[in-house]
Amino acid sequence: MLRIAMIQMNPIVGDLQGNLRRIARWFAEGRKAKADVVAFPELALTGYPPEDLLLKPRFLEDVQRAMDELAHQCRGLAAVIGYVSQGERRSEPGVGRPTIVPAGRQAIYNAAAFIAGQKVVTTYGKRYLPNYGVFDESRYFHPGRRVSVLAVGEATLGVNICEDIWVPEGPTRLQALAGAEVIININASPFHVGKGRIREQMLATRARDNGVIVSYTNMVGGQDELVFDGNSLLVDHQGEVIARGKAFEEDMLVADLDVAAVARARVAQRGRRWREGGGATGVERVVVAGQKRLRRHPKAVPVLAAPLSPMEEVYQALVLGVRDYARKNGFKRAVIGLSGGIDSALTAVIAVDALGAKNVLGVFMPSPYTSPESGEDVAELVQRLRIEHRTISITSTFRSYLRALRPSLQGEAVDSTEENIQARIRGNLLMALSNKFGYLVLTTGNKSELSVGYATLYGDMAGGFAVIKDVPKTMVYELARHRNDLDGAAPIPKRIFDRAPTAELRPNQKDEDSLPPYPILDPILKAYVEEDRAPEDIVAMGFARPVVDRVIAMVDRSEYKRRQAPIGIKITHRAFGKDRRMPITNGYRRP
Amino acid sequence: MLRIAMIQMNPIVGDLQGNLRRIARWFAEGRKAKADVVAFPELALTGYPPEDLLLKPRFLEDVQRAMDELAHQCRGLAAVIGYVSQGERRSEPGVGRPTIVPAGRQAIYNAAAFIAGQKVVTTYGKRYLPNYGVFDESRYFHPGRRVSVLAVGEATLGVNICEDIWVPEGPTRLQALAGAEVIININASPFHVGKGRIREQMLATRARDNGVIVSYTNMVGGQDELVFDGNSLLVDHQGEVIARGKAFEEDMLVADLDVAAVARARVAQRGRRWREGGGATGVERVVVAGQKRLRRHPKAVPVLAAPLSPMEEVYQALVLGVRDYARKNGFKRAVIGLSGGIDSALTAVIAVDALGAKNVLGVFMPSPYTSPESGEDVAELVQRLRIEHRTISITSTFRSYLRALRPSLQGEAVDSTEENIQARIRGNLLMALSNKFGYLVLTTGNKSELSVGYATLYGDMAGGFAVIKDVPKTMVYELARHRNDLDGAAPIPKRIFDRAPTAELRPNQKDEDSLPPYPILDPILKAYVEEDRAPEDIVAMGFARPVVDRVIAMVDRSEYKRRQAPIGIKITHRAFGKDRRMPITNGYRRP
Repeated sequence: MLRIAMIQMNPIVGDLQGNLRRIARWFAEGRKAKADVVAFPELALTGYPPEDLLLKPRFLEDVQRAMDELAHQCRGLAAVIGYVSQGERRSEPGVGRPTIVPAGRQAIYNAAAFIAGQKVVTTYGKRYLPNYGVFDESRYFHPGRRVSVLAVGEATLGVNICEDIWVPEGPTRLQALAGAEVIININASPFHVGKGRIREQMLATRARDNGVIVSYTNMVGGQDELVFDGNSLLVDHQGEVIARGKAFEEDMLVADLDVAAVARARVAQRGRRWREGGGATGVERVVVAGQKRLRRHPKAVPVLAAPLSPMEEVYQALVLGVRDYARKNGFKRAVIGLSGGIDSALTAVIAVDALGAKNVLGVFMPSPYTSPESGEDVAELVQRLRIEHRTISITSTFRSYLRALRPSLQGEAVDSTEENIQARIRGNLLMALSNKFGYLVLTTGNKSELSVGYATLYGDMAGGFAVIKDVPKTMVYELARHRNDLDGAAPIPKRIFDRAPTAELRPNQKDEDSLPPYPILDPILKAYVEEDRAPEDIVAMGFARPVVDRVIAMVDRSEYKRRQAPIGIKITHRAFGKDRRMPITNGYRRP
Repeated sequence: MLRIAMIQMNPIVGDLQGNLRRIARWFAEGRKAKADVVAFPELALTGYPPEDLLLKPRFLEDVQRAMDELAHQCRGLAAVIGYVSQGERRSEPGVGRPTIVPAGRQAIYNAAAFIAGQKVVTTYGKRYLPNYGVFDESRYFHPGRRVSVLAVGEATLGVNICEDIWVPEGPTRLQALAGAEVIININASPFHVGKGRIREQMLATRARDNGVIVSYTNMVGGQDELVFDGNSLLVDHQGEVIARGKAFEEDMLVADLDVAAVARARVAQRGRRWREGGGATGVERVVVAGQKRLRRHPKAVPVLAAPLSPMEEVYQALVLGVRDYARKNGFKRAVIGLSGGIDSALTAVIAVDALGAKNVLGVFMPSPYTSPESGEDVAELVQRLRIEHRTISITSTFRSYLRALRPSLQGEAVDSTEENIQARIRGNLLMALSNKFGYLVLTTGNKSELSVGYATLYGDMAGGFAVIKDVPKTMVYELARHRNDLDGAAPIPKRIFDRAPTAELRPNQKDEDSLPPYPILDPILKAYVEEDRAPEDIVAMGFARPVVDRVIAMVDRSEYKRRQAPIGIKITHRAFGKDRRMPITNGYRRP
């Protein structure tokens, strides 16, 4: 028996001292649980992703110092902890070894330290470095070259990191062939909707194919665009999920691993499946000295947290994303412009769930084009949410702009210019409140709008954090309904759902005057933005050619706006931001 | 003798049809010059960098089609052209082969096509993929595995791409050992100040070390943050520069290469330096069939354009960056807020040099805090530049904001909130002119301000393109002096140089009230932002600890502003933007 404690923790990127203290506190919990080995996430010590902090030599020294201190504090336990290890200063690259980092820079690894007896016994460097989507690991890290297994008491362990386990013929295979009964895989795997299921299927397959227990410890918490969802998993050697950590909160999963049963199953299957790959050459065996015979305690009963529904997991991702962005950046309160529409209503509810009602200020900024219903719905919403609120009319400031611009705009027809001025006045007012009181401005634009550029730069796009920027409009409604159904209170008034979406920037404006209806727009956007489909393929899905062409042209044309948008939370397969890097200057198929 | 024509061309990213036509026009020039081989830049067909366009399967198909068409149009010439080639759909990665792109995605190469007899005879895939600084090539490309030499008439050529030639033991070495007398290296090498000299030294060393003629063809033109500087080079096998292309404009360099002399020098040196590396195993020899004996013509006299001074090259980079951003994005005219300060004056002069005086509108937006001198200096500037100009007072709009905010701000002290409101009114006015007339708003902030966050988000930071965002304030003065000295006209009035820098957002404000003097600030910023130096190292350079700490804290704290800044032109070793990727949420050494 090996007792493992998998600790899905929430670090802050760069905060080495804070993360060190947090890890040390979890050591104490691991000891209390009588664990033999505790596993922490990938880059738990630095937070993920540390980005260009990794280019600072001083940062790397500080990481090393913090790891030494951690080893010292790790009494009575073995531990697997993600950090950054340093190799030699790299020389000129050899023939056939593609340059990944410039010559002369320190070679560093996305590493796992294995600590036992208060010492770093060995380290493992991540072999498969993701460099797609939101990931830039080849910008920083060298791929690890060494694969080892660790003899800890009666058990043999293989440690590897995140992407490594997604590769069938990767380190997991090699380590199993070299006798590992348990794979300790540590992760910083960001959430997107639907990922949990794929992850669980892959881990079950990997465990079964290799006849190993797989311990998958994931990070939790928000970091800029990303939310790590936790959901750590323990899968036995037959592919059964035997423990699952909580979603979107710190958690410790404790379980007793029956390594003898894994070994017995291997003997029974000798020559069969798990041996087919041939011998595991080049795998080093590290005997963890001074490790006492593993202790026996009353059996730990592993927890199986129930998986969340898709809407609930998206909702919780948004709440945690907002909470952590605010907390980790030192904001206590947030301010939101409330229009009476569904986007700002949902954003306000998320903010209240993330920060508490007393920490949210709603501001209603009516113009002459604002309908009385909007004011009534805002009043109803803030009452239900019990948040502080304020009304600031933009009418006279709008007039003042028009007066100032009259000599310049004389003779020109009224167009979106005048609409944008109104949106920008609202942006300025919210920023003034932010500047004066230190509130975080949360923007309220959704992914559909941002995709087609139906948003005003420096207007409704002004703010520090864009809560629902990756949520398509149709999903905004779903999430709002889901949240309303969660408790009896139903914070969002029914009429907000029922009224047709409108920016109210000119008389009787409706979103559908400028855009296809959202149930048509959203699938076109998903196909184009998230799936890189060609126009003809989208037409073949059943959409009218002119509509498809118009939508694609709008998306392509708005790249400059998105480049200046605040960051926001990734919840889909492909979000705007690091995930999608399009040139602004782009002559491809420009209609 | 081999006559080469090196064509430093200016493509538009994604505009495959336009680039195809442009390349075909240069074919005609190459034929007129009686060239045997014409060389085009790296990714000449797609433009550089195409970024996530490379993830669209349709884009890749279109590239292939365009390359087929190009080969067909390449009559009577051999040509080396940068494009994207496709390999097989990649299977599961093998052991020891780090995942670079996700499984299932088409493997693509940053490639050079060698065209002869109107056919693509062979392709070369770039072996060393830069994935640092502004480069993300591992996000898209597989490293090439094949190295070949081409027998073309009496000459043997080696083709390789950009980064490849920076590696001493890379393809250049292999190709030389396999008998190449000429290396045709094609590039998309972005400008930064001082890079030209390093490039020239490296190429001379590489040519001498390997006893080969090196033909270095670089791209030219602006693409979002990057400016490619041209400056193509031809270096003989003794390391002498024998031809240099123009800086910052399209150009064709024609030269006759004495391949026989290279071969003779090798025989004389047999067993010496260039043979020391051992045999070139695995280098394929491609005989270019149907290639007639190379033609003899009156000797081409290669041109040696004089290198520019550092200030002149920065200035020309900025002018070309603005011109190409405007042209390639369909803007004819630009609008600039003129404050009477040096930053907006320099920006206006650059804009006039880039777009022509008749295409620049200067807007002066005084407040009660604007000094009479500022108005006079703006008047003098616009008169010297002969640009259209306009004065729009922000006073009454500012009052309108204060009235609207009075109930919310009651009892609060006046602070930077009120300053930001003024800056944001100006931003809104410029954006209104932009929205109404389709002008490009050029922002005027410099790198020093942007580094420490001495700028207003959505205020002076509002606009489409940030011309001098990578120019430190001390260099702004240098550039302005340089430009004034260029011709007798001296567009920037002397008093603008002499007055102390001020934002004029409150009575008697000076930049030095908030910031260290620029001659102290700028070297600290360079050390911290561009060179990743630790605080102690900067103190050791001779700066006071409290000043260094304060500056670093200001830089770290302003990351969120920079993330929403418009893109602008990279001219230093490290610019803000793709070049420097810092987390916003960052607990490292936060004071």
